[in-house]
Amino acid sequence: MRERTQVAIIGAGPAGLLLGQLLHIHGIASVILERRSRAYCEGRIRAGVLEQGTVDLLDEAGVADRLHREGLVHGGIHISLDGRRVHVDLAGRAGGRHVTVYGQTEVVKDLIRARLDVPGALHFEAEEVTPQDFDGPAPFVTWRDAEGRSRRLDCDVIAGCDGFHGVTRQCLPEGAITTHERIYPFAWLGILAEAPPVMDELIYARHARGFALYSMRSPSIVRHYVQCAPETDPAAWPDARIWAELRARLGDADGARLTEGRVLEKGVTPMRSFVAEPLRHGRLFLAGDAAHIVPPTGAKGLNLAAGDVHYLTRALVEWYGGGGEAALGAYSARALARVWKAQRFSWWMTAMLHDFGPAASTFDAGLRRAELEYLLSSEAALTTLAENYVGLPF
Amino acid sequence: MRERTQVAIIGAGPAGLLLGQLLHIHGIASVILERRSRAYCEGRIRAGVLEQGTVDLLDEAGVADRLHREGLVHGGIHISLDGRRVHVDLAGRAGGRHVTVYGQTEVVKDLIRARLDVPGALHFEAEEVTPQDFDGPAPFVTWRDAEGRSRRLDCDVIAGCDGFHGVTRQCLPEGAITTHERIYPFAWLGILAEAPPVMDELIYARHARGFALYSMRSPSIVRHYVQCAPETDPAAWPDARIWAELRARLGDADGARLTEGRVLEKGVTPMRSFVAEPLRHGRLFLAGDAAHIVPPTGAKGLNLAAGDVHYLTRALVEWYGGGGEAALGAYSARALARVWKAQRFSWWMTAMLHDFGPAASTFDAGLRRAELEYLLSSEAALTTLAENYVGLPF
Repeated sequence: MRERTQVAIIGAGPAGLLLGQLLHIHGIASVILERRSRAYCEGRIRAGVLEQGTVDLLDEAGVADRLHREGLVHGGIHISLDGRRVHVDLAGRAGGRHVTVYGQTEVVKDLIRARLDVPGALHFEAEEVTPQDFDGPAPFVTWRDAEGRSRRLDCDVIAGCDGFHGVTRQCLPEGAITTHERIYPFAWLGILAEAPPVMDELIYARHARGFALYSMRSPSIVRHYVQCAPETDPAAWPDARIWAELRARLGDADGARLTEGRVLEKGVTPMRSFVAEPLRHGRLFLAGDAAHIVPPTGAKGLNLAAGDVHYLTRALVEWYGGGGEAALGAYSARALARVWKAQRFSWWMTAMLHDFGPAASTFDAGLRRAELEYLLSSEAALTTLAENYVGLPF
Repeated sequence: MRERTQVAIIGAGPAGLLLGQLLHIHGIASVILERRSRAYCEGRIRAGVLEQGTVDLLDEAGVADRLHREGLVHGGIHISLDGRRVHVDLAGRAGGRHVTVYGQTEVVKDLIRARLDVPGALHFEAEEVTPQDFDGPAPFVTWRDAEGRSRRLDCDVIAGCDGFHGVTRQCLPEGAITTHERIYPFAWLGILAEAPPVMDELIYARHARGFALYSMRSPSIVRHYVQCAPETDPAAWPDARIWAELRARLGDADGARLTEGRVLEKGVTPMRSFVAEPLRHGRLFLAGDAAHIVPPTGAKGLNLAAGDVHYLTRALVEWYGGGGEAALGAYSARALARVWKAQRFSWWMTAMLHDFGPAASTFDAGLRRAELEYLLSSEAALTTLAENYVGLPF
């Protein structure tokens, strides 16, 4: 079976789905091929803090109705240092811009529903997806559908939105991209639990026992994390141990208020910084986690994917509008300039809040503590936190 | 020979001299013992950027008349990225506070002149200076004077202001202090030259060939630096090579304007971050380079010494005024809180502007570039630069 579209999108995560929807709004046809099932895609628990710009894009894509009904607007965060908690007003320092707490899994559900309204625009359980001939003007993607049929999708452009472990980046010829990476000596052990939040806004806690993050997803669901060793087996952390550790790291006052509840999900998130550049090779474009990973501190992963999609949509709209090669050529550098700034911010938040363990230099440990103490003492530094946390402009 | 004073100060660098003068103003007697000759002390070429708070202290010490006549007030700096130069207004972002360009060597001359007005308050060429019995209430310092006589100076308190390689820190018992250190994979090759400056304010230049710093000391003297390998022999850098490298790193426009002149001094400055803590052991106190070293980027060395002296003067004035142990006890933590923030700033300026070479992680190199690009794009980040550069408040 041979079909044709304008943009072949590999991956139905937030990046691919949002790209398909925005292109649709601009009258550009696309087909999304996703290896997993719909249920799997909708069940993945991920980040839940949306920048103002991400919300604006979801509005532009016409999929933000439920988000506006159910999402929780946060104008600040708390930072806790050895049990002393300080509230940081972000909106007041970022020109009224704020973040919205709304799970990535909900964003994905909303986007899938919208994409499925367009017949043939989204295929789940697509196997052996392989981008081909993207060096030339007539790329195509071969794949096998859920019924086992071999299919071919001809297109003008291929968008690789298939995540860090996806096939697209790995299909690029040797030397086509340069990668940059940092692995951190710790991970996050996260729980999703049925418990009434004791506080709306997030608490980022630095403590001698390690980092902890208190957050909520809805009026009845909380999402908490504790820093752990990278090779941690979640089974070694019974629920009671996690709650006790959270209490200890949040400190006496906040720890005592914490409400416990049934743990719905438990998992370990590795911490990695990764950038592949450039984001383009011929007619193939990378966006989102396929091109870059940030550690979760600061919640930039989904938002960076949205940024890429914004720039890629603009590039494709201009190209189809007659903008020529220059329109496509601009994407990578524009997106990467913002990506690197978000990498900087995510690294900074991560470094400042975590314990790097006894193997780390004590000078570096002193610097990291000084960074946090300077931050809490400086209106200007708090403003840099605010503008990055709500999201730098596109 | 046995004498007595209130505060025995070891070292006639800026820290020791300023401490002696401020104590004098407050009616506290001190004697400064310096290993080198007056000519040597007055001839050392060091930093030349004074924070507002340092100038205020020199005013308080009554030694700022010449500084106000000859010092050059700078309200900003330039930052050059691959030859593109941007002016950064500091005073406008730091509530009108600014820096003053006035060589450390001139500060030292002014302070020596003032100390020599007090008979017996300053001894040069003091050999075998050894702080003793500082664990108890009756410390003393033994030394041998320029005439070869053994002398003993009884005192209440000993102030170690004798620099990184000085004797005081090394006299402390094993385990009394903890040290933290970072060595950088580069150094600065500096020249002092007789040439009319082409620009008043400093240019901090980041370039693919490495860092360069353009600065001036007076209307006829310039002070420039280029990043070099740590083991660099200045003899391997004939003047012509230094000028050529400066031109290349400043970029076409600024490089072409650079005026050359006779090189008066040439030397290599190693780059190190170092902190010893606490700053007190019994009746012995450390201040300035004896306790901490910053890399020269951002010119915090002399200013940090001034900060320590401010806190130590306050502690001693309170103690002699009847403040008891608490007065002395407060010094170390107060001074170190500011020291660590200045370490953070000096490290940040250094990391952002230098080339860490091919052995460094390319991810880290990307972060360092992103740091500078974010800085230049953010009013809030530029304000953090401004408030740190002019000096955080005491």
